[in-house]
Amino acid sequence: MPSEPIDPVAARSVVRVRVRFDETDLMGIVHHANYLSYMEVARVEWLRRRGATYATWTQRGLHLPVVEVSVRYRAPARFDDELDVETVLAEVRAATVRFDFRLLRVDDSVMCAEGWTRLAHVDARHVIRRLSRETVAQFMRPERVP
Amino acid sequence: MPSEPIDPVAARSVVRVRVRFDETDLMGIVHHANYLSYMEVARVEWLRRRGATYATWTQRGLHLPVVEVSVRYRAPARFDDELDVETVLAEVRAATVRFDFRLLRVDDSVMCAEGWTRLAHVDARHVIRRLSRETVAQFMRPERVP
Amino acid sequence: MPSEPIDPVAARSVVRVRVRFDETDLMGIVHHANYLSYMEVARVEWLRRRGATYATWTQRGLHLPVVEVSVRYRAPARFDDELDVETVLAEVRAATVRFDFRLLRVDDSVMCAEGWTRLAHVDARHVIRRLSRETVAQFMRPERVP
Amino acid sequence: MPSEPIDPVAARSVVRVRVRFDETDLMGIVHHANYLSYMEVARVEWLRRRGATYATWTQRGLHLPVVEVSVRYRAPARFDDELDVETVLAEVRAATVRFDFRLLRVDDSVMCAEGWTRLAHVDARHVIRRLSRETVAQFMRPERVP
Repeated sequence: MPSEPIDPVAARSVVRVRVRFDETDLMGIVHHANYLSYMEVARVEWLRRRGATYATWTQRGLHLPVVEVSVRYRAPARFDDELDVETVLAEVRAATVRFDFRLLRVDDSVMCAEGWTRLAHVDARHVIRRLSRETVAQFMRPERVP
Repeated sequence: MPSEPIDPVAARSVVRVRVRFDETDLMGIVHHANYLSYMEVARVEWLRRRGATYATWTQRGLHLPVVEVSVRYRAPARFDDELDVETVLAEVRAATVRFDFRLLRVDDSVMCAEGWTRLAHVDARHVIRRLSRETVAQFMRPERVP
Repeated sequence: MPSEPIDPVAARSVVRVRVRFDETDLMGIVHHANYLSYMEVARVEWLRRRGATYATWTQRGLHLPVVEVSVRYRAPARFDDELDVETVLAEVRAATVRFDFRLLRVDDSVMCAEGWTRLAHVDARHVIRRLSRETVAQFMRPERVP
Repeated sequence: MPSEPIDPVAARSVVRVRVRFDETDLMGIVHHANYLSYMEVARVEWLRRRGATYATWTQRGLHLPVVEVSVRYRAPARFDDELDVETVLAEVRAATVRFDFRLLRVDDSVMCAEGWTRLAHVDARHVIRRLSRETVAQFMRPERVP
């Protein structure tokens, strides 16, 4: 099934994070697993800017668990670096969505990593649930930064 | 209220963990927050050896959240070090228990950290619940390593 | 040895964090170890507001490892909650400093946790090093929010 | 450049991990980022069973940072579940290696996740370094469980 048509401008948000001390490892760089955390922070904020508070969803028992993830690491990020997480809604299907990410170091615009995550829409018992028209409409809105 | 009387021999278990790569930080040593994780792993195993599977508790909606923690760091642990987490039940009150910990590097018996955690017994709505006689009896058993 | 005299107004900063999804556990609340991460984020920002960039220190091989920590958990914080981490320099000795913390939920001002950490000043080989007059002077400055 | 020829039997090890409490999230399941940690634990053990102690490498300033990762999540793992991490060396090139992973729940053999990671061989300054013949030979050995 093809994706719903997506407006590439409306689909994009940039969320800034700063690398924490405990996100580094003995190589002196950000441990690779933490990029999944940055991408998740950015997704949650992406939703918030379109009126969808994920915390409210979780209270209603609706979740968007990650079902697939892919990341390419390009350049190391280090403690205290600021990173811009460019987040783009790339696909909307019946019960899944895909977000694409690029993580750019703010200081010098170097891309540290790029990747994507596919999320499934499930209920509290982890059963796949079709996305409602209302939810899809929320996903299609341009961001509003509060 | 004083603690229930505790047999110091029965109250003690030693659980071994190995330091993971992502538990180190840019100082090249284990990040201090990870000791709380090791202490938790040891508590869960301490309970298992006395017939109390914490995972079963959580399915019944009973929990033992940490309500107080104190740790003194003595010597750095490093990637791939094996640590023996000495875990001693130190206090049993109406609805709380306290465990004392010492974390010793296996290679040279150096103590890397010592500390304690106090846990409350709560139900699924986070309401404090008195420990049943049956649960207290489980806590008083000596360990049985499977 | 007594602490250097500290101006309680100058010694205080408040740093806001938002609870991430992966900082929750199966109880639906923030896992207790993550409060150490919030306290660390706040310390790093406390230093930055006084002209001391911790990342620069680490590049020079100077570190402030945590040597003691104590936390009392008062009320659960949940996913997406905003927390104000009140951070107060409480003690400055020859080679150690202590920070006191209170973590307040922004929505309702409920205190979720309070605690303190003692840090040692060490060089790249983890040898304790006396704090220079210059560093102590930095610690005594009031904050400047950029 | 094609991979060095690999013996599929010698290339395989299975490493068991148990899900920790702090690896779960508010959905009551293992947070997806933690699978990267399990895969790393298994890689380190895979190397150890072939005589290559990764901790020794890091002391010599040699590292195997992850440069690409891909994971498909199939079924949720839960607190206290035991998982067998099947780890297979899948590709050996001039300066990179690829490991394939399948994570199976021990209780019922359900596959919770599968994926792979590509690692680069770098020195302490993060410069790519060709794998020595000696190192490649180590990678080709069958495991020896101590």
